[in-house]
Amino acid sequence: MTDTGFHGVFPYLVSPLDAAGEVKAGVLARLCDDLIAAGVHGLTPLGSTGEFAYLSREQRRRVVEVVVAATKGRVPVVAGVASTATADAVAQAREYERMGCSGILAILEAYFPIADDGVHDYFKAIADAVSLPVVLYTNPNFQRSDLSLPVIERLSRVPNIRYLKDASFNTGRLLSIINRVEGRMKVFAASAHIPACVMLIGGVGWMAGPACVVPRQSVELYELCRAGDWAAAMERQRLLWALNQAFAKYNLAACIKGGLELQGYAVGAPLAPQAPLSREGLEEVRRALQALGAL
Amino acid sequence: MTDTGFHGVFPYLVSPLDAAGEVKAGVLARLCDDLIAAGVHGLTPLGSTGEFAYLSREQRRRVVEVVVAATKGRVPVVAGVASTATADAVAQAREYERMGCSGILAILEAYFPIADDGVHDYFKAIADAVSLPVVLYTNPNFQRSDLSLPVIERLSRVPNIRYLKDASFNTGRLLSIINRVEGRMKVFAASAHIPACVMLIGGVGWMAGPACVVPRQSVELYELCRAGDWAAAMERQRLLWALNQAFAKYNLAACIKGGLELQGYAVGAPLAPQAPLSREGLEEVRRALQALGAL
Amino acid sequence: MTDTGFHGVFPYLVSPLDAAGEVKAGVLARLCDDLIAAGVHGLTPLGSTGEFAYLSREQRRRVVEVVVAATKGRVPVVAGVASTATADAVAQAREYERMGCSGILAILEAYFPIADDGVHDYFKAIADAVSLPVVLYTNPNFQRSDLSLPVIERLSRVPNIRYLKDASFNTGRLLSIINRVEGRMKVFAASAHIPACVMLIGGVGWMAGPACVVPRQSVELYELCRAGDWAAAMERQRLLWALNQAFAKYNLAACIKGGLELQGYAVGAPLAPQAPLSREGLEEVRRALQALGAL
Amino acid sequence: MTDTGFHGVFPYLVSPLDAAGEVKAGVLARLCDDLIAAGVHGLTPLGSTGEFAYLSREQRRRVVEVVVAATKGRVPVVAGVASTATADAVAQAREYERMGCSGILAILEAYFPIADDGVHDYFKAIADAVSLPVVLYTNPNFQRSDLSLPVIERLSRVPNIRYLKDASFNTGRLLSIINRVEGRMKVFAASAHIPACVMLIGGVGWMAGPACVVPRQSVELYELCRAGDWAAAMERQRLLWALNQAFAKYNLAACIKGGLELQGYAVGAPLAPQAPLSREGLEEVRRALQALGAL
Repeated sequence: MTDTGFHGVFPYLVSPLDAAGEVKAGVLARLCDDLIAAGVHGLTPLGSTGEFAYLSREQRRRVVEVVVAATKGRVPVVAGVASTATADAVAQAREYERMGCSGILAILEAYFPIADDGVHDYFKAIADAVSLPVVLYTNPNFQRSDLSLPVIERLSRVPNIRYLKDASFNTGRLLSIINRVEGRMKVFAASAHIPACVMLIGGVGWMAGPACVVPRQSVELYELCRAGDWAAAMERQRLLWALNQAFAKYNLAACIKGGLELQGYAVGAPLAPQAPLSREGLEEVRRALQALGAL
Repeated sequence: MTDTGFHGVFPYLVSPLDAAGEVKAGVLARLCDDLIAAGVHGLTPLGSTGEFAYLSREQRRRVVEVVVAATKGRVPVVAGVASTATADAVAQAREYERMGCSGILAILEAYFPIADDGVHDYFKAIADAVSLPVVLYTNPNFQRSDLSLPVIERLSRVPNIRYLKDASFNTGRLLSIINRVEGRMKVFAASAHIPACVMLIGGVGWMAGPACVVPRQSVELYELCRAGDWAAAMERQRLLWALNQAFAKYNLAACIKGGLELQGYAVGAPLAPQAPLSREGLEEVRRALQALGAL
Repeated sequence: MTDTGFHGVFPYLVSPLDAAGEVKAGVLARLCDDLIAAGVHGLTPLGSTGEFAYLSREQRRRVVEVVVAATKGRVPVVAGVASTATADAVAQAREYERMGCSGILAILEAYFPIADDGVHDYFKAIADAVSLPVVLYTNPNFQRSDLSLPVIERLSRVPNIRYLKDASFNTGRLLSIINRVEGRMKVFAASAHIPACVMLIGGVGWMAGPACVVPRQSVELYELCRAGDWAAAMERQRLLWALNQAFAKYNLAACIKGGLELQGYAVGAPLAPQAPLSREGLEEVRRALQALGAL
Repeated sequence: MTDTGFHGVFPYLVSPLDAAGEVKAGVLARLCDDLIAAGVHGLTPLGSTGEFAYLSREQRRRVVEVVVAATKGRVPVVAGVASTATADAVAQAREYERMGCSGILAILEAYFPIADDGVHDYFKAIADAVSLPVVLYTNPNFQRSDLSLPVIERLSRVPNIRYLKDASFNTGRLLSIINRVEGRMKVFAASAHIPACVMLIGGVGWMAGPACVVPRQSVELYELCRAGDWAAAMERQRLLWALNQAFAKYNLAACIKGGLELQGYAVGAPLAPQAPLSREGLEEVRRALQALGAL
């Protein structure tokens, strides 16, 4: 990989586990291989779709190990580091760097609310602990904390905090961030944003679960956006959005795992007490994938 | 005006009142004249920025009267109809049609939550009561009710409900709506969305308060989007977004009134207990307007 | 009535309207008579249950007129004054004083958020405009604004602001308020609180919709609390709470109107687009009333 | 201890850690000893105040170990089991039973929303895995999931699920629960409720952080409630509530740790990125403790 920086389509990988809680290394490795063959620009284990919030420390470590080994340096692996506690997050980040990851996706979990200074210090501590580029992750929907614009601006001045992935529904907020960080930080979309819109306003790609099941179509959309062919991009985008809509209705991990099962990957169900995708959801995902030629 | 349908830039007009609560007809008429001269495609009295929620029935009526008289048919006037009660909304809509409006912007206020059937019936009753085109207004930020996708789809089958204006921050929701109504309903953005993005995904324009103070710049952005010159559009959009950011931080009516005061329109302050724009806010608006050549 | 101050059970009256929107004066007057005969300590037209948010200015005025005439000074009438705009609220309060009310229940409606100073000024303006005692009304569930503890403390120093009615679910907040206002303001519960608990911590009564259908039982509970017979009070309270639970599940106005219809008062349904009480809700209310001997 | 069931005052213990993340066993053991000497009826390690959400699996285990050893069976130890994943929660519960705990406080953490069936299955799996009595914990303020009344009723039929601790602000909800479970489950208050009110409506005690710093005063309040001396109880309660108010304003763990430091327990600060109690908070806690004779 060149060092032009992270960009393009980074699927949020699922975490396939067997009944005993062991990572199904063969299934996960094959998925990585196939996604790279389809042209994705990077891989992101341990995002929301990867059920980071449900896995033990050891299960998380094993997921990263399998993905790094399967990737063989062909694309960057940006692993999710998530904790409520600074010391624990720092330990995770250091471990993932040692294991050969190319970047860290830094996630703050919270139980009690954290003031801006604490939010800043958490992310800065992670960045200081590694030499890798760091992607800030903000997700006001599923997390108790969010990164305010002033905190994002402060963090954009930390040299190796170079990206941000925003999982809100608020695309205007992304433009406000882009305006504010003046190029020090690049922005990735998540599945709640329309990728073509985020590309239009200056984003560099997206990190999202749905790219696991439609990697080729996602890459084509990305290329159309990069080429400035917005009319063709929107035609493609509209079809892909139907898939995002389906995913938005159901548990994200259940949906992507359900879609991958339809495509022949034995990734199983999300961890209990999460429910597997309902029959109705499965039909909706099947139809969406068929319409996209992904089944 | 042609009947190609509503499209383009519709400023949400402020409601200038004197200390006795009388509408300042001269100021409002001059603002309408100047906006039309700047090229706006329509005028919208009694939106959020127009403080519909703070005006008496008689003050609302007077605002519409002044705007219709000043406009002299040069552009469509789409007046806001807002109530908690169906019968009251129907009476307002009929009155505004009689007064010469070209369309109705239909707003549901709510105190107790209203189920989907009630929401549907409210908007349908308004549409049935007039022969004008109706614009549905959804604003989950300031209102207690929101229109679900199934309700929007049902309402899109009412012949004269032909537009929707969405004031959420969720641009993806707009694409979901556009996908779902299959052309039966056209979509306008509000100030919380990035107009260029909404144009990219198939929107037909925007109805928003900031267009009151930057009408020419807004129309230029619209024309660039229509021409498909997205690179130039985004350059313009980025500058304009700084203004939306300022407006998002403060009370919307206070901000637009403050900006208009800077431009020489004696529109006064918003109705108490709303506070006038703070000194700090005024400076921020001044800087944003100066950067846009609007002062 | 003595001037020992407001205390005891104040039913929130419903607003019965006919199909043309006229107040059904006969029905409302009979309800007032029966409630007074059952021993209630006051009457409160135009609370939430009274659908103040759905009535026109003229309908509200007429409701107050009918209630004052029916009451004939036997108990205090504390009428709801509600607006988004200070000037409008002041005008309502003055009118209700002229019409013979004994107190004002002051409600702030809001569309845009209002800062603490604006909230303070709104309520102070109402209090200054009348010579009657004023009851502050706080309802974070259905309104956009809420009264912070510092604002409540400031307002407790306005001489004729002498009561507060809190409609949150947070009984601890009431104790915090009681501790803070040091006797300058007395506290009434609403239907979301357990009246016996509020009496225990120092409250002086409750203003609530359910008292319309179980006035005698409510007064008995009040008397047991006043007598300090907490064991007997809780026995009574537990039965009454089943009714509050039923009311909490449905639209408040629909519920009380439904219950009154079962008792033979032709109060009709709530204003559209509110739905009348469902068949299932009606059965639940019927069972609760039967268990209480109120049917 | 007798087996009349859990009741009374259960302080939520803090988790004192040194800079290396080791549990300060001496400090924690002394706190347990002193609380038991002050008359508390049980001890609860790993509640919210115990920062369960910030501790590693090993740190949690060590906290339980120290508390069980210090308690020497004098009062029941009810340890918090918390996870997003069923299998992990079951493993924790089994381990704490083997270590000698007397009960399990079962907490569901969540990232994605969990449907009622999943919530039920999670708690049932924990109960089935141990022979100990289980306390359900509900906290809508800091957690993403909440237990609906129907789920609570279903779970009340699991034989060893015998208690519920509710940390909402909604005391009425507790009475609804008490009415619904008809004695199969007993209810404890948390610090957001007024303990005297919860005792009045039929609760059996409270589990809360503040009892760490005012154990004797809490036990006295409990005894007055048990004796039905409600007037004296409320006098005591009013003073204690001032402390709860202070705690409600700040991070709960920071507050209790700050208060204990003032009392001479070197429990340190909460785990980063949580901030230690501010100087202003410390003064407020100091004043509240002095007023209660606890300093």
